[in-house]
Amino acid sequence: MKIGFIGLGQMGTGIAQNLIKAGHNLVVYNRTKSKADALKPLGAGVATTPAEAATAAEIVMTMMADDHALEAVAFGAQGFLPALAADAIHISLSTISVALSRRLASVHKEQQQQYVSATVFGRPDAAAAAKLFVVAAGATAQLDRCQPLLEVIGQTVFRVGDDPVAANVIKLAGNFMITTVIESMAEACALMRKSGVAPETFLDVMTNSLFNAPIYKTYGPMVASGNFGKVGFALPLGLKDNRLVLAAAEEAAAPMPMASLIHDRFIAAIARGFSNEDWVAFSRGAMSDAGL
Amino acid sequence: MKIGFIGLGQMGTGIAQNLIKAGHNLVVYNRTKSKADALKPLGAGVATTPAEAATAAEIVMTMMADDHALEAVAFGAQGFLPALAADAIHISLSTISVALSRRLASVHKEQQQQYVSATVFGRPDAAAAAKLFVVAAGATAQLDRCQPLLEVIGQTVFRVGDDPVAANVIKLAGNFMITTVIESMAEACALMRKSGVAPETFLDVMTNSLFNAPIYKTYGPMVASGNFGKVGFALPLGLKDNRLVLAAAEEAAAPMPMASLIHDRFIAAIARGFSNEDWVAFSRGAMSDAGL
Amino acid sequence: MKIGFIGLGQMGTGIAQNLIKAGHNLVVYNRTKSKADALKPLGAGVATTPAEAATAAEIVMTMMADDHALEAVAFGAQGFLPALAADAIHISLSTISVALSRRLASVHKEQQQQYVSATVFGRPDAAAAAKLFVVAAGATAQLDRCQPLLEVIGQTVFRVGDDPVAANVIKLAGNFMITTVIESMAEACALMRKSGVAPETFLDVMTNSLFNAPIYKTYGPMVASGNFGKVGFALPLGLKDNRLVLAAAEEAAAPMPMASLIHDRFIAAIARGFSNEDWVAFSRGAMSDAGL
Amino acid sequence: MKIGFIGLGQMGTGIAQNLIKAGHNLVVYNRTKSKADALKPLGAGVATTPAEAATAAEIVMTMMADDHALEAVAFGAQGFLPALAADAIHISLSTISVALSRRLASVHKEQQQQYVSATVFGRPDAAAAAKLFVVAAGATAQLDRCQPLLEVIGQTVFRVGDDPVAANVIKLAGNFMITTVIESMAEACALMRKSGVAPETFLDVMTNSLFNAPIYKTYGPMVASGNFGKVGFALPLGLKDNRLVLAAAEEAAAPMPMASLIHDRFIAAIARGFSNEDWVAFSRGAMSDAGL
Repeated sequence: MKIGFIGLGQMGTGIAQNLIKAGHNLVVYNRTKSKADALKPLGAGVATTPAEAATAAEIVMTMMADDHALEAVAFGAQGFLPALAADAIHISLSTISVALSRRLASVHKEQQQQYVSATVFGRPDAAAAAKLFVVAAGATAQLDRCQPLLEVIGQTVFRVGDDPVAANVIKLAGNFMITTVIESMAEACALMRKSGVAPETFLDVMTNSLFNAPIYKTYGPMVASGNFGKVGFALPLGLKDNRLVLAAAEEAAAPMPMASLIHDRFIAAIARGFSNEDWVAFSRGAMSDAGL
Repeated sequence: MKIGFIGLGQMGTGIAQNLIKAGHNLVVYNRTKSKADALKPLGAGVATTPAEAATAAEIVMTMMADDHALEAVAFGAQGFLPALAADAIHISLSTISVALSRRLASVHKEQQQQYVSATVFGRPDAAAAAKLFVVAAGATAQLDRCQPLLEVIGQTVFRVGDDPVAANVIKLAGNFMITTVIESMAEACALMRKSGVAPETFLDVMTNSLFNAPIYKTYGPMVASGNFGKVGFALPLGLKDNRLVLAAAEEAAAPMPMASLIHDRFIAAIARGFSNEDWVAFSRGAMSDAGL
Repeated sequence: MKIGFIGLGQMGTGIAQNLIKAGHNLVVYNRTKSKADALKPLGAGVATTPAEAATAAEIVMTMMADDHALEAVAFGAQGFLPALAADAIHISLSTISVALSRRLASVHKEQQQQYVSATVFGRPDAAAAAKLFVVAAGATAQLDRCQPLLEVIGQTVFRVGDDPVAANVIKLAGNFMITTVIESMAEACALMRKSGVAPETFLDVMTNSLFNAPIYKTYGPMVASGNFGKVGFALPLGLKDNRLVLAAAEEAAAPMPMASLIHDRFIAAIARGFSNEDWVAFSRGAMSDAGL
Repeated sequence: MKIGFIGLGQMGTGIAQNLIKAGHNLVVYNRTKSKADALKPLGAGVATTPAEAATAAEIVMTMMADDHALEAVAFGAQGFLPALAADAIHISLSTISVALSRRLASVHKEQQQQYVSATVFGRPDAAAAAKLFVVAAGATAQLDRCQPLLEVIGQTVFRVGDDPVAANVIKLAGNFMITTVIESMAEACALMRKSGVAPETFLDVMTNSLFNAPIYKTYGPMVASGNFGKVGFALPLGLKDNRLVLAAAEEAAAPMPMASLIHDRFIAAIARGFSNEDWVAFSRGAMSDAGL
């Protein structure tokens, strides 16, 4: 298919590569053009504006860092929105606010364009390996059109209904659940250390019994190590996602006290100077409170 | 081996049966004698006092509901402690306080008896099926003596060091982690319902991707159902364990704000009249706050 | 002095009347013009746009409900900002975000206009009676120019430095402290009721001993009554102020867990349908958790 | 009247002196006898056991540090309880648990003795100056008998009903409210410091407007100073009172999330090594979280 692909960060680059390898025809755009040029050898066309990427596309896929960045490429000067053909689909992969997703749904409808929200779980290595978990929502006919593409980039495609916003809410709640896993292990590990038990011993028991899920195996050793300098997902981005779930919760009128608690942990981590570390660094809060 | 077994609730009965089936020679004691008598046909001897169960035993195993119950059979009138032979082992399986475990360690040492703390994860069906996860701590030589017994009752035996208290701290922290799983799913499901997404859809995505651990698959549907009338683990026992982890945290000087939050959820559940339900019923708090 | 006065809600009307009575020459603007017309008999001129109110003014005072409303009259079509003379002063009385106050400081400086932030504590009756507490910040020379006006509208004028933003931070933190008073009394009163002690008895002791401040005497009986239908300050405005203090805290990197807790209380109150009540209605959360 | 007075810490000594000065006939007991001997020159008799202090007394007053200490002098070897005459009154001034107060009520009734709970608000200087606030509960006839004594030691005597436990619940809730004042000022002052506003400026505004109560004037400067080395009320005693209010809340089934939050602050303060400071030192938590 003819695809305009916008946003070539770590995640977007991996995804775009997999689409190209699967034989799709990509025209890519990225604000820093060198990242787009890097895909030329694989056969990608390079656009100099978001609009150009969308002009001849059946589908535009966007993978941006936040609301602001997506708004810029969609609604900004030379944004892709006016350039997208009627009935063409915008597949939004980014972790964005419920409010922006709702706005996109409305604007695309006005323009007689299609809109599918397809959020993804997984880190850059999973994106590169086409092992993402994809959560897709939109009109059934459009999801059917997107299905082959989504299967190219992920190991599983979950369809979660015809309201695109559902995919965004699920993504935000999923990230929230990851933060609760980190905080719970941080508090438990602080208790272990203060009780004379090695956190590694505790985590070994947990992750080989009731908690033998990837999420505990991935984050447990990071929490126990206290070493967060290698950044897979930066702390300020974690705070951003926390802010988005709190905003969604406020709009839906559903209090989330654990999200509030973790919000305060993120702020404390920033206050203590850990902005340049991985988001797991907010786990230092529980350690600090225990005098560790 | 000659084993005195004290405490025949749902958990204890399953464990005792497995020991008998494995060929061990049990003398059992339970306050309500009928439960002890029920094991006679399998070949168990029945003691009328805790002391009697311990008299000829190489090992006494206890599986009591709480500190109070264990103190009664250990230190009370006709308690087993004075009756236990020198060098015989007390294996404590119960979920008790760190303080009581420490006291037992000290008293047994004075009496030249051995003490092993072997806490277990799993519900009554796992106890019956010999599928418990056992967390054992104590002197290596004593753990070696206990190992064959513990393998009879569990699918995995984790050895976590020579301080018996470590097994208790790990058990309490593990139960704490389960409560955080319940609360996080409750908050996320409340958000889903208020956002027009079925909680089941959300949980389907989560438990088939990053959170594919038994604990999420067990508790997720319970949280989403809002139906807690079938009691596997009663709410007041959940509160008791929460209280024990908070006490351990206070003693170790390690604040656990998530445990505090869940404490308040338990109290609210009791205030609203859910004492007779399964402990997952505290998840109603997040729903109630969202007006559900 | 020649004053343009913009924003004639309950607070603004009381303040404007006091300025007129003190002999000042007011041209007033309000979106709903009838409220401006109501001041004609007292001698006020009525402007049909914000710009018109500012044209001949030495000082423009604004008293708007929120950031959005102030942005509209300042930066919107026919906003007062371009119309304000060089060296004229904008006195901002509204409870607005730190971010907007900072933006105003910057823009006014560019335009060579003066900016004073003068936030106020007190309800509409205090505004009408000229009994507000005024917290003023800005360049000393400008504060000196404003002082006579501020003394007209308040019982005390606190000068808190030369950075206008300081007055906004203090206002937000003050409102935060009021919410902590409400929540603390709600929790204590829930305990009283569940313990068989009348909340009124408890509050009588408190407000006649260590807590004999207006804030406890004002809000205590409201909390105890459980009756929030008479609206002095609407619940959604309380939530807005809570949101502003959390935003200020996030920007400054100073976690405020009590503000987070109260945030969740506000959301729960909205979820339960109390949006049309006084902001004290968030105190129902503590009662509800106690099964009351 | 003939009074046995037990417990001569800082609070008890001040109270006992005032009773002697008012012409009452005291026999005093204290575990460390030198503190009792110090009252001899004023005319007090000195008992060598609690029982001796009670033998000839119409009234026994107790002012102990905690439940444990009161249990020791009441129920321990040579405790005063068996020695107290029928119809004599025990006036309990201490901050103790609801559970112990209920037990005392029950035991005194069995012994046909009278029991009045008369808790006090105020620091040692207020005790010495007879400026305590007294909260008294018990049978009306007994309160009438005690009234002249209570007026000697306090500036106001509040009568709060015929159930002695009410005075204990009110005392614990009052101390809880003080901790919320400290925490709210700590969070607000952290925000100030991170926003470039002097905490003293903020507190000056607050305590001269809406928050002009002694409690804010007393604790505000302490919070702002960050200097907690001069101990009026030791941090571990503050934690004890927090524990008591949480226990009362749990028993009454009334969740108190602010008390939980402050519990975690106390634990963190102990973890960080501030056990020897004044209880206001828990306010460091908010500062630490803000990187201060």
